[in-house]
Amino acid sequence: MWRATVLTLYPAMFPGLLGDALAGRALGRAWSLEARDIRAHAADRHGTVDDTPAGGGPGMVLRADVLAAAIDAAEADDRPRLLMTPRGKPLSQARVRQLSAGPGVLIVCGRFEGVDERVVEARGLEEISVGDVVLSGGEAAATLLLDACVRLLPGVMGDAASGDVESFERPLVEHPHYAKPRDFEALAIPPELLSGDHAAVERWRKRLSLQTTRVRRPDLWAKYVASLTGGVDKRGESE
Amino acid sequence: MWRATVLTLYPAMFPGLLGDALAGRALGRAWSLEARDIRAHAADRHGTVDDTPAGGGPGMVLRADVLAAAIDAAEADDRPRLLMTPRGKPLSQARVRQLSAGPGVLIVCGRFEGVDERVVEARGLEEISVGDVVLSGGEAAATLLLDACVRLLPGVMGDAASGDVESFERPLVEHPHYAKPRDFEALAIPPELLSGDHAAVERWRKRLSLQTTRVRRPDLWAKYVASLTGGVDKRGESE
Repeated sequence: MWRATVLTLYPAMFPGLLGDALAGRALGRAWSLEARDIRAHAADRHGTVDDTPAGGGPGMVLRADVLAAAIDAAEADDRPRLLMTPRGKPLSQARVRQLSAGPGVLIVCGRFEGVDERVVEARGLEEISVGDVVLSGGEAAATLLLDACVRLLPGVMGDAASGDVESFERPLVEHPHYAKPRDFEALAIPPELLSGDHAAVERWRKRLSLQTTRVRRPDLWAKYVASLTGGVDKRGESE
Repeated sequence: MWRATVLTLYPAMFPGLLGDALAGRALGRAWSLEARDIRAHAADRHGTVDDTPAGGGPGMVLRADVLAAAIDAAEADDRPRLLMTPRGKPLSQARVRQLSAGPGVLIVCGRFEGVDERVVEARGLEEISVGDVVLSGGEAAATLLLDACVRLLPGVMGDAASGDVESFERPLVEHPHYAKPRDFEALAIPPELLSGDHAAVERWRKRLSLQTTRVRRPDLWAKYVASLTGGVDKRGESE
């Protein structure tokens, strides 16, 4: 079973939304989730887990000794140890796929201003970011990462094929979707999709996928163009 | 009060982790949250909300008529209407700040293969992505967006200053943090931070911030370099 251990100051936040729907039905079957309270390893009997930043400045920093004790107690040496932080490397679908193929994850949820850098170094934490936004803590980011991993576990998705053609399994943003009813208000389904001509459908989807990528994601578009001139698209495999 | 309405097939997923800690304490005071079930607007008495994609392919598409009815019933014309989808524009801290300064948000959580494009057009949905990963649905992404917005609402954060200097309020990744204890295992706090020399602390932090940005985020680094040569850094305001 794929094992997830979350170190947090708010263990009651888990499983949260992961206890419902796809992930929830697979919980205890395809994966396990344990939320452990960092405060149980506090430096004193008042439950102190943070201190003022060395060098001054606002906010509080999660102490290295407290977090190291929490990590060591979790006994997760066989699993990648992740720290959710805006300082990290952006999470990619390629990394999600790697993580879901492994034994599980240990996830540290940052709070306050940040985490003492020395515990990142001493415990080999992999710093991961889920977007250029500031959160109140790492818990929402951890939930998002687990949701992405769990859906890829064997037996979790009903229609296995669905996972393979979605956005970011390719280097392009996905094409738009349409379904019944055929007419919705004044808007019709594009005729190419109703033509019954499989090649015409594929051409239309590829064209819209390229168009959307170029307009919304100049970063992905640049990678795509580079992959064309470079001959091989490595985006799905790298990182 | 800042109003959040979430349209989802899993209303029990909310408030989820937003009911705890910072966001939870402010819930009902600084902000309100209503999760509405899209299925209440199903096309038939069997509760059908999706259909097969026009043009074929795997998965199911959320119907335009069903979702439009759910949006209309939510009566959120005064608020931005967001659709969480990997096809969207990446969420930025600048957009989070704009949203938190407004009256609130309506958030549509996608499920299945996607949402019928016509409802996006007809109801003016703003498509937002929270990273290049595939989720089981938009609920984890919506939770993340709300967490980022709520912490910026007036009165939510105890130490208001803390919000202003964090990652992505500037175009660089933040410097590392340190706190007591002074010695942790074999690792010491960098002497610059203990010098008591404010200018030396600032120089060290700037240097580490630049270093981390260059190594981990070539995309942000390119913007930073461009801002230096362009004379003005506009990243905080643009998107």
